Amino acid sequence: MLLPIPAPVLGEFFGTLTLILLGDGVVAGVLLNRSKAHSAGWIVITAGWAFAVTCGIFVSKALGGLGALNPVGPLADMVLQQMPPVDGLALVAAQMVGAFVGAVLVWLHYLPHWQVTKEQDLKLAVFCTAPAIRSPLSNLLGEFIGTFALVFIASAVGKVTKTGDGLNVVGGLEPPLIGLVVWAIGLSLGGTTGYAINPARDLAPRLAHFLLPIAGKGSSDWSYAWIPVAGPILGGVIGAFAFKLLTAG
Amino acid sequence: MLLPIPAPVLGEFFGTLTLILLGDGVVAGVLLNRSKAHSAGWIVITAGWAFAVTCGIFVSKALGGLGALNPVGPLADMVLQQMPPVDGLALVAAQMVGAFVGAVLVWLHYLPHWQVTKEQDLKLAVFCTAPAIRSPLSNLLGEFIGTFALVFIASAVGKVTKTGDGLNVVGGLEPPLIGLVVWAIGLSLGGTTGYAINPARDLAPRLAHFLLPIAGKGSSDWSYAWIPVAGPILGGVIGAFAFKLLTAG
Amino acid sequence: MLLPIPAPVLGEFFGTLTLILLGDGVVAGVLLNRSKAHSAGWIVITAGWAFAVTCGIFVSKALGGLGALNPVGPLADMVLQQMPPVDGLALVAAQMVGAFVGAVLVWLHYLPHWQVTKEQDLKLAVFCTAPAIRSPLSNLLGEFIGTFALVFIASAVGKVTKTGDGLNVVGGLEPPLIGLVVWAIGLSLGGTTGYAINPARDLAPRLAHFLLPIAGKGSSDWSYAWIPVAGPILGGVIGAFAFKLLTAG
Amino acid sequence: MLLPIPAPVLGEFFGTLTLILLGDGVVAGVLLNRSKAHSAGWIVITAGWAFAVTCGIFVSKALGGLGALNPVGPLADMVLQQMPPVDGLALVAAQMVGAFVGAVLVWLHYLPHWQVTKEQDLKLAVFCTAPAIRSPLSNLLGEFIGTFALVFIASAVGKVTKTGDGLNVVGGLEPPLIGLVVWAIGLSLGGTTGYAINPARDLAPRLAHFLLPIAGKGSSDWSYAWIPVAGPILGGVIGAFAFKLLTAG
Repeated sequence: MLLPIPAPVLGEFFGTLTLILLGDGVVAGVLLNRSKAHSAGWIVITAGWAFAVTCGIFVSKALGGLGALNPVGPLADMVLQQMPPVDGLALVAAQMVGAFVGAVLVWLHYLPHWQVTKEQDLKLAVFCTAPAIRSPLSNLLGEFIGTFALVFIASAVGKVTKTGDGLNVVGGLEPPLIGLVVWAIGLSLGGTTGYAINPARDLAPRLAHFLLPIAGKGSSDWSYAWIPVAGPILGGVIGAFAFKLLTAG
Repeated sequence: MLLPIPAPVLGEFFGTLTLILLGDGVVAGVLLNRSKAHSAGWIVITAGWAFAVTCGIFVSKALGGLGALNPVGPLADMVLQQMPPVDGLALVAAQMVGAFVGAVLVWLHYLPHWQVTKEQDLKLAVFCTAPAIRSPLSNLLGEFIGTFALVFIASAVGKVTKTGDGLNVVGGLEPPLIGLVVWAIGLSLGGTTGYAINPARDLAPRLAHFLLPIAGKGSSDWSYAWIPVAGPILGGVIGAFAFKLLTAG
Repeated sequence: MLLPIPAPVLGEFFGTLTLILLGDGVVAGVLLNRSKAHSAGWIVITAGWAFAVTCGIFVSKALGGLGALNPVGPLADMVLQQMPPVDGLALVAAQMVGAFVGAVLVWLHYLPHWQVTKEQDLKLAVFCTAPAIRSPLSNLLGEFIGTFALVFIASAVGKVTKTGDGLNVVGGLEPPLIGLVVWAIGLSLGGTTGYAINPARDLAPRLAHFLLPIAGKGSSDWSYAWIPVAGPILGGVIGAFAFKLLTAG
Repeated sequence: MLLPIPAPVLGEFFGTLTLILLGDGVVAGVLLNRSKAHSAGWIVITAGWAFAVTCGIFVSKALGGLGALNPVGPLADMVLQQMPPVDGLALVAAQMVGAFVGAVLVWLHYLPHWQVTKEQDLKLAVFCTAPAIRSPLSNLLGEFIGTFALVFIASAVGKVTKTGDGLNVVGGLEPPLIGLVVWAIGLSLGGTTGYAINPARDLAPRLAHFLLPIAGKGSSDWSYAWIPVAGPILGGVIGAFAFKLLTAG
């Protein structure tokens, strides 16, 4: 161990950093002016986020992390009393900081493109989500449904790909399969709120947008910020609980 | 077991719910106004349905289901006398109810988008299929060919991925492979009738469209409803029979 | 065994039928008027053919075939003296007939769409390839390079995915991997001649176009027909020979 | 062994040839006039390069290569003192020559299309990268970040997919997973400089562009050529070092 940091915390930090570098990165590529990926469309956005999840899980697991990349994972484990709160909160903190650093790297990577992009809402959209139609209750429900589906289906993937002796014979397959689940959620349920489905994915990059000296930036839309936090936490924890209940001995 | 419901029935219910939530969901994303996926095209529609199948199979299997998500599966098993009728009908009922609930959730998820979409045919198209060119015999033949191909190819995938001792060494691989088969059918044979290839997928959401208070909805096109039921049942059962015959010892 | 037909012949017949049903099917979906996949673009065409290959291999293997779907396979085996000519020719015949029947099914599946499509060249393009720029030597070279690459890379996939004891631990993976190779060839080398890379894929459907009563059809362009036969045979056999030479103990 | 050439050198030669034939090939297909893939978009470009990587790794490994296809691999091994310099330089030379030959084959494959394409910058773009916004420091940083991410994530994939006993149970899976990583980098970070992320991929085809008698070609833009060499070498070697440090006992 290089640093005096537990491996799971290190893993979640670098995994979530990877998730946001590639996830916010694909949005930057599609939305910012003069990018070679400009206007490449929804298939590119959703594929980019799906592969970002897969890459992030590989990074997290290789460094000793859980491959959660999402506070919803540790929070559900805490609520279901499978994890001491102090451990869970350390993981959540690592995810938040990792997501923040990932967003800073996206800003650096696309540095010359911010000033040639006039639209302030597009610049914000690189970092965090905004609803297609602003309607708090519907937006909250949308994030709830999306994250419930994510956690429920990902739990099902985890269960099916495990063999009886607790070892996964197709170890390298789970990260792309979870990426596929996120691709599915994005394609099918992302059209409404842009599928944050992860509080760290939305809140930490929004903070980065707020703090960074982005050329010609506008508001960070803080009034919306609670929805992609509350919706995913509620949907994710209840989804994990529902799956546990339905598959309990 | 939480509920007094057999695991296969529970699995088919939640698996088919997942199929329709994500499958009808991707159509909603592409067709409804002001969705972020608006006009995202055929690759998005067909990928969305393919991943919906994969996710639905994972959910079904994790909960103890067969991963059929399609009445054609139990019906073929009944006709080939591998399943008692009462069991088969319970599975079909679970699939129909699951598909109905999935369609209701799509309506809820996209709630603010119905009233900003004027076209009544697009709103119906979110729920169920309509022919590109209305021609009952051709449409019936199209659904027959599509479902025959689906069942025949999926049976081939099942046979090839099984090892000699009856265990599938790549357990987690079958759901994405079946999703790939559905993606293939959609890309190649879906242009004519929109590839229902599953009676539950078409009939139950059509009923949901009929019953739900969808803003500004039009006809549920009941005169067409028998084709995506009869075509898939005939094509699927005969396809299963043909595969059995051709691979019989 | 149901029919007095050897399993490899039966497998190649149904596998190549599946290849052409789905492969020519995706072209029909994209090119024919009023199809729901109309103008869906190159990603749809190439994905459709890739998945058609994967599905065709599964069908062929499940029925006892080699999963070749391409006369180039048996021809290379004959030239490299690994297969008696009579067996090889039976397989080639099964592939040709299978491809013909697949093309007939595409005609039937899209039956109402032929008369609403005016362009005769598009109707032919559903069945067989045509060069982007007519230039026999370049077109021949293009088909040579494409098929050389196909056979060489597919041989590499086969070698890498086999374990030391001759068994493939990831049995269900080879068909999608070969599909991926065809997807790669299509995306990267298909822009010139439409990547026939398989004599059966081009010649048999061209014959179907010639013989079928397709509404408003034009010429079957027989003057070009020798190129997608000769190019693939030369490229495929030499590619197989080159791979064998380079990997010989 | 056919030739008096060590298998790893032969493998890297043919693997990198395959990478550039298919990678530069997909760019030719999308950019050159009258190609069937013309204007097929970013999803086609990035998918083509991803599959080119997968195919190249399979070819390299089947012939006894490392599947690196990128001087960054041997260079990192040399710096981390895991490989004698003479071996490393032989591999780099094989990759450079392979990339050059791959580029020549792309020129031949698309031969009739060069003279019908007027734009000189598009013809150069088939062979090598150019920045979306010319800004040396940002472009260098972009190539650094992209290659750091590539090497770091690919190392993570390698670690996760290996079992404890050093054998990879899913041997055939690593090439497509590395292809997925390159797809991710391309989608998410490629919009700025076109993601060379490999000195051989950029420099050798640029030399081919300079030397070949391409109809109506323009400048080879040598003033930019050092960036897609220096950025990837720095990013790749430091990325490999960082991964080793973070995962060290």
